[in-house]
Amino acid sequence: MKALKSKIVQQGKVLSDTVLKVDSFLNHQIDATLMKEIGEVFASRFKKDNITKIVTLESSGIAPAVMTGLVLHVPVVFARKKKSLTLSENLLTANVYSYTKEETNTISVSRDFIKPEDNVLIMDDFLANGQALLGLLEIVERAGASIAGAGIVIEKGFQSGGELVRSRGIRVESLATIASLQNGTVTFKEDDK
Amino acid sequence: MKALKSKIVQQGKVLSDTVLKVDSFLNHQIDATLMKEIGEVFASRFKKDNITKIVTLESSGIAPAVMTGLVLHVPVVFARKKKSLTLSENLLTANVYSYTKEETNTISVSRDFIKPEDNVLIMDDFLANGQALLGLLEIVERAGASIAGAGIVIEKGFQSGGELVRSRGIRVESLATIASLQNGTVTFKEDDK
Repeated sequence: MKALKSKIVQQGKVLSDTVLKVDSFLNHQIDATLMKEIGEVFASRFKKDNITKIVTLESSGIAPAVMTGLVLHVPVVFARKKKSLTLSENLLTANVYSYTKEETNTISVSRDFIKPEDNVLIMDDFLANGQALLGLLEIVERAGASIAGAGIVIEKGFQSGGELVRSRGIRVESLATIASLQNGTVTFKEDDK
Repeated sequence: MKALKSKIVQQGKVLSDTVLKVDSFLNHQIDATLMKEIGEVFASRFKKDNITKIVTLESSGIAPAVMTGLVLHVPVVFARKKKSLTLSENLLTANVYSYTKEETNTISVSRDFIKPEDNVLIMDDFLANGQALLGLLEIVERAGASIAGAGIVIEKGFQSGGELVRSRGIRVESLATIASLQNGTVTFKEDDK
């Protein structure tokens, strides 16, 4: 996706060979117009898949997921990383290790919002080691729902998550796939749509 | 806001005289179409205020804030409840006590994203005791920015937050103000716009 890649080149900060900071438009400050465009692209890629629900993870997955849900006319559910007092029962859960935060979180979604008849599009802002995405897949599988695929804003193609998830037969659509962050430079994978 | 109030009446669950659960459309599952309408109403109420930035709090503030930012053409920044490893310096912080979660969180925003020249619209999904909103106000004040007002999706008019914030001269626009949750019934304040 051209507008997204331009934004990554212009505003992304390469902090190391593995860390790309995009907090000026994606995961701290949010460019709402870009998110709308991102939502339209995801909706277009999954428009023939009869999606009934989008499942994402708080917090950075919410903006692109809601914009996609707006176009596809389906509800968005975000998994929580922490239990709330008013949301304590009837949960689907999975354990997710975060390499960034160096901790394991139990993520959870209420059973009320993913049903066996749902056909789910899973979304997240980043795909790196794939732990968050595997956790979301586990939750959707536990609900007995179908998985149409995963929509990822930025995939780190040099990390193992994409391969890990695709090898399970899951369709993964990434809007920008990064081949390398070496020498402080963002290089995209050439066959990116 | 009529569509919001209808949704609250149809889908809200009154758990006690003080707790209203709206997790089927606002803070766990998200109705993207309703969020778009909410964004349009907030944008209309603040369209003459030269807003340059929206500041909200993860996670449930993000969807309404991003939809408002889309219409007002301004970036949205969400305060984090937890520090991330890639976002550890240069922070504006405030302590917020959550009566729901019975804990104090340090919320934080990078100084990079709120500047003294900004005119900020603060947004959140709920206004109850006002602690989260006061924390966001403190952060924006620390940045030296101006505060245009606060946009709240649901205000619990029977709790003290609204009075607390308005008594400081802050304009608060709430799309649905609840007068009472007694007897398991949602009663709205009559003079709601």
